[in-house]
Amino acid sequence: MNQYQPRLEKLFDWMARESVTLAVFEDAGGRRDQTVRYLTGQPGDALLFLSLDRKTVLVPWDINMAKAYAHADMIIPYSEFERLPHKAITAVAEMLGIPAGSKIEIPPVTPYPLFLNYVGELTDFDILCRERGLAAEVKKIRAVKDDEEIKIYRKAADITNALIGLLEKNTRSGKIKTEADAALLIEVEARRGGCEGTGFETLAAGPERSFGIHAYPAWTDSPFAGPGLSILDFGVRLAGYTTDVTLTFVREANSRQEKLAGLVEKAAKLSLSMADNGAPARGIASAVEDLFAKAKKRMPHALGHGIGLEEHEYPAVSKRPDNEWILEPGMIFTLEPGLYDPLHGGCRLENDILMTETGPEVLTEARIIRL
Amino acid sequence: MNQYQPRLEKLFDWMARESVTLAVFEDAGGRRDQTVRYLTGQPGDALLFLSLDRKTVLVPWDINMAKAYAHADMIIPYSEFERLPHKAITAVAEMLGIPAGSKIEIPPVTPYPLFLNYVGELTDFDILCRERGLAAEVKKIRAVKDDEEIKIYRKAADITNALIGLLEKNTRSGKIKTEADAALLIEVEARRGGCEGTGFETLAAGPERSFGIHAYPAWTDSPFAGPGLSILDFGVRLAGYTTDVTLTFVREANSRQEKLAGLVEKAAKLSLSMADNGAPARGIASAVEDLFAKAKKRMPHALGHGIGLEEHEYPAVSKRPDNEWILEPGMIFTLEPGLYDPLHGGCRLENDILMTETGPEVLTEARIIRL
Repeated sequence: MNQYQPRLEKLFDWMARESVTLAVFEDAGGRRDQTVRYLTGQPGDALLFLSLDRKTVLVPWDINMAKAYAHADMIIPYSEFERLPHKAITAVAEMLGIPAGSKIEIPPVTPYPLFLNYVGELTDFDILCRERGLAAEVKKIRAVKDDEEIKIYRKAADITNALIGLLEKNTRSGKIKTEADAALLIEVEARRGGCEGTGFETLAAGPERSFGIHAYPAWTDSPFAGPGLSILDFGVRLAGYTTDVTLTFVREANSRQEKLAGLVEKAAKLSLSMADNGAPARGIASAVEDLFAKAKKRMPHALGHGIGLEEHEYPAVSKRPDNEWILEPGMIFTLEPGLYDPLHGGCRLENDILMTETGPEVLTEARIIRL
Repeated sequence: MNQYQPRLEKLFDWMARESVTLAVFEDAGGRRDQTVRYLTGQPGDALLFLSLDRKTVLVPWDINMAKAYAHADMIIPYSEFERLPHKAITAVAEMLGIPAGSKIEIPPVTPYPLFLNYVGELTDFDILCRERGLAAEVKKIRAVKDDEEIKIYRKAADITNALIGLLEKNTRSGKIKTEADAALLIEVEARRGGCEGTGFETLAAGPERSFGIHAYPAWTDSPFAGPGLSILDFGVRLAGYTTDVTLTFVREANSRQEKLAGLVEKAAKLSLSMADNGAPARGIASAVEDLFAKAKKRMPHALGHGIGLEEHEYPAVSKRPDNEWILEPGMIFTLEPGLYDPLHGGCRLENDILMTETGPEVLTEARIIRL
């Protein structure tokens, strides 16, 4: 049995409970969904169908890639359907003998005009497009990593930690002088460590640019780790799964900059002390915002987020009123308090946490590095 | 007057003709839309509102970035609306005094559940979400580049061409040995040339991996430009605009590989000879597919696509039945015939074409390089 089967079984069971006869997943430009990879191994553009009688049909854009990577009962090139999703759904429903009147569930990111198109073409079926159906179930399942995934994360964390050490060493020695030096070192070392690459575009922002949450451009030829606050936010992607850490380098800080760094470190400690099994993620985010509010500061982004095949997964670790996530064993998420000042620069400290039966385990070793 | 005003005027005129009182654009994770940057200069996450009385309101996620980059009549941080789009729309509609019963147009990529949410919250207004409304107008406007954009593209093409020369030289000299060598050279040289970076993830696929349209991972430590076919697909991003070229390196080709390369070169010539003002893009794509069909080959992707702030813009250059794009002056698009064989590897030749009053101008100098 491969690692995909137990994941599929959970969804087949859910489909049976909910009387959903056909479930459709789509990974396409503008509508990326790594669930296709999570359930089949196919890393690129494709449609995936799950049927109530426990069959999987993959409709990839690149059939050669699917032959090399994917596990599915049937694989049919998308070109057979002119790469039109409604044609593919119609044909697959017929091929699998889905009875008229059945429920077909499509992704909740389906644009409204495309939804109308499906409803117009698939008149024999009951088309479901909802946040709280299949997609919510997938989010829930993917938010708790299985043993295979945790194994990958331990390795990815080792590679990340070695890289953090090297980044600190090379910055201290003066080998890293520019944002580009830092970003390119990460690109090279990630692959040397056996990763597919970086998990997202590395963000290297020297003192002049660190005021931005996500500096634009992500990295340039300008100086890094000179006097002030410099931010380095990166992840390595191993077998599809990305880590996500942020270091801040502090050099010759003025009192404002020291205050930002101190507050962020305090917030990181506070949030970690609260992250335990059964804790509502929202409460942790609120506590950090309260801490900052006391110092008359405001964090312009969420405290954290789950990580996995996507850079942002569940659980959400934000204080949004609709955030109902409760931490539980198997969840892997970031905690990343940050403060940004247009004049004095920004500071963020981000680590990846694995929740275990016995509490939080900090997988990564990101830190605020005082030069 | 900045470069954004004439673009906005076109849309304000369209809104007046169509009686749309408020237009909403969204650039967000999972729903990227560079139209926000096109109309304001803001490079990151934000909502943008255009009102019939010719006002613009920008609601950015990162207010510091907006202060540094964006032009808009009003700028309000997204956090004021708890980063909830329906709250922002409600508040901005009230602030601008949009009368009850007005038409508010939202992006056609709005997911169906979010659309229901808007309709439920904005009960005073007529919510439009359609492919053939505002979004189609924006596509049409953005498909034809203005003088400012063409100036950027000429510079970006120069940088790209210098890079192509360097890539050929360093491959011939043996300095580039691996996919990583090629990809990292591009990262460094793009920035040295004044670009923001690469326009998309560079795809460097040596002979073992070039069979994939988009090899996965995009580049690795494995050999590049050894015996067989190697593909290098990249672009540089200058002031937001990306080029998009593909080189194929051929070394010690067998007869199958020579045949693929010869056919692709023939297709590139054919498509360029047909690309003229007034030509339907679909016809060019069909002619290339016919050429390949005669040789019993099939191209698994479209012949080309517009480029701009996004890697894929309009005009479409595909043979899809719904492709009605006609080439006209100011359009900038790729032509990229390619053929892929699971055993013998892939070959693609992609250049960027600017349509001028007097016909096509090939901006870039990508080629099939025989080593």
